[in-house]
Amino acid sequence: MQALYFDGQAGLRHLPRPEPGAGEALVQVRLAGICRTDLEVLRGYHGFRGVMGHEFVGQVAGPTHSPWLGKRVVGEINVACGHCQWCRQGLARHCASRQVLGLSGRDGVFAHYVAMPEANLHEAPPEVPDDAAVFAEPLAAALQVIEAAAITPASRVLVVGDGRLGLLIAWVISRQGAAVSLVGRRPGKLALAVPYGVEIFLEKDLPDDSFYDVVVEASGAPGGLALALARVRPQGTVVLKSTYAGAAPLDTARLVVPEVRLIGSRCGPFDAALRLLRQKLVDPRPLISHILPLAQGVEALALAQQPGVLKVLLDCRAAAD
Amino acid sequence: MQALYFDGQAGLRHLPRPEPGAGEALVQVRLAGICRTDLEVLRGYHGFRGVMGHEFVGQVAGPTHSPWLGKRVVGEINVACGHCQWCRQGLARHCASRQVLGLSGRDGVFAHYVAMPEANLHEAPPEVPDDAAVFAEPLAAALQVIEAAAITPASRVLVVGDGRLGLLIAWVISRQGAAVSLVGRRPGKLALAVPYGVEIFLEKDLPDDSFYDVVVEASGAPGGLALALARVRPQGTVVLKSTYAGAAPLDTARLVVPEVRLIGSRCGPFDAALRLLRQKLVDPRPLISHILPLAQGVEALALAQQPGVLKVLLDCRAAAD
Repeated sequence: MQALYFDGQAGLRHLPRPEPGAGEALVQVRLAGICRTDLEVLRGYHGFRGVMGHEFVGQVAGPTHSPWLGKRVVGEINVACGHCQWCRQGLARHCASRQVLGLSGRDGVFAHYVAMPEANLHEAPPEVPDDAAVFAEPLAAALQVIEAAAITPASRVLVVGDGRLGLLIAWVISRQGAAVSLVGRRPGKLALAVPYGVEIFLEKDLPDDSFYDVVVEASGAPGGLALALARVRPQGTVVLKSTYAGAAPLDTARLVVPEVRLIGSRCGPFDAALRLLRQKLVDPRPLISHILPLAQGVEALALAQQPGVLKVLLDCRAAAD
Repeated sequence: MQALYFDGQAGLRHLPRPEPGAGEALVQVRLAGICRTDLEVLRGYHGFRGVMGHEFVGQVAGPTHSPWLGKRVVGEINVACGHCQWCRQGLARHCASRQVLGLSGRDGVFAHYVAMPEANLHEAPPEVPDDAAVFAEPLAAALQVIEAAAITPASRVLVVGDGRLGLLIAWVISRQGAAVSLVGRRPGKLALAVPYGVEIFLEKDLPDDSFYDVVVEASGAPGGLALALARVRPQGTVVLKSTYAGAAPLDTARLVVPEVRLIGSRCGPFDAALRLLRQKLVDPRPLISHILPLAQGVEALALAQQPGVLKVLLDCRAAAD
């Protein structure tokens, strides 16, 4: 099969089709999404080597005895050991020896096929087309912000960053009735939040006296954390969705004096994401900038790094090989 | 009256006795405590100028019509405007135009007398001697850690820092049955936690596989935050009690990937602190290293900065002048 492999640089390879282990399924990948974390892999994130990619929708192609056979699926990205102290405490996605699809110790989804535990799979509802279902993973991560910060319909929320993740976060928070504002730098991207009732601001236009119960930093720029801390109300919450290469400066007085909570948030609930997609409460497809065939994977990675580009998808459907 | 005044450097001054305004009481200070924040004032914290100090126990000496007259009191340190957006929302201690005793815009307690709102006063129970009551403010701040992190009897807690605040925090958390460990560098100070059932560790001896539900950074050293983040369990909570001059480096991946909460905590509940003191559940007096008369205030500030010294108190009782 064909796969987009990273071994210090990204390139296409012909690899044997993966053999699913015990409890695993073989998934034929249909569409896969390029995430910012994939771009960080290119810069050496976690020293990963292998088939890239973790956002996907596909169809289970084996083993033949699997109850999942033939089903259209999306999948969670963490593969836990099942018996360490965190797994035993129900914190499996923090398993110290976990593998993460396309990010750590395990081949990912930028390929014709991927093997992964059946326990990671979720069936894609028939009402959700491939080009929406492929957003299940980032949509779940966006929903986790609501979980992490306990956002309620009465919350006043500011999302910092008008990229893919910032938009998804603003959208999902708006769905429960909370008052959401989105601040960014690019009017064209900000405009994608308007149909969701989100108030949009260019950074320079954010009113000086606006403070928020919850501020979500999703800009990926170290300055975003400073902006978030400047805009959260006393005893409010800042959710950090972004990781930066290296350390960001933290003025601890900006946490301690106003008694602010800073919460890190990562993966989220797939089932909730699929419910939103099935109910058409969120339609992620306007985020798609380009769909390229897997064979153009290297070009797709380059495209995803260009300013102004939102989501780049890889079409991994191909004649079986 | 005599007062310890900071105007770029600390020195004794003779000042007129303060005139209490409407709703204010005049308090004759009996004992006052030197806090690390006072030492930061010496380094330019908030550009404060005025009478230093905010931890005290005293006796109300006026006005003659006050219902507080003659009562022995401790007092909260924030003086709010009462009508801004935060005051109206019940967040008075975050009032944007607040004054803080001896720290911001308002004369403090290192003096024979101090004027402050009656609303800030709490009566010291007769069972609590002056040299214990003077700890009400830092003890309240220690209790706020339990509030902020929602620590329960089932929590496993690590306190980083064997200074005054770290010890008070370890003590109060131990009182509700939680398993508390304290890590520091000085065996003599760590030993003060043993009577409270606190497990103590030198930094080098902390087991590699020990992780905690809650880690409280009270060391005041920027390295303390890194230690706290390394020792908190996935989805756990780090409470930041320390402010550092300038910014501490924050590796955001250490928050986002393990989905950790970082919570700033400042002032706390005086009523709870006074209950603990009255019940003798905490006896802060072993923290007292020295008691010096106000007239030796400059020497006392120098003493409080020496390694190994815990609490330095100022005896402000003097013939009225």
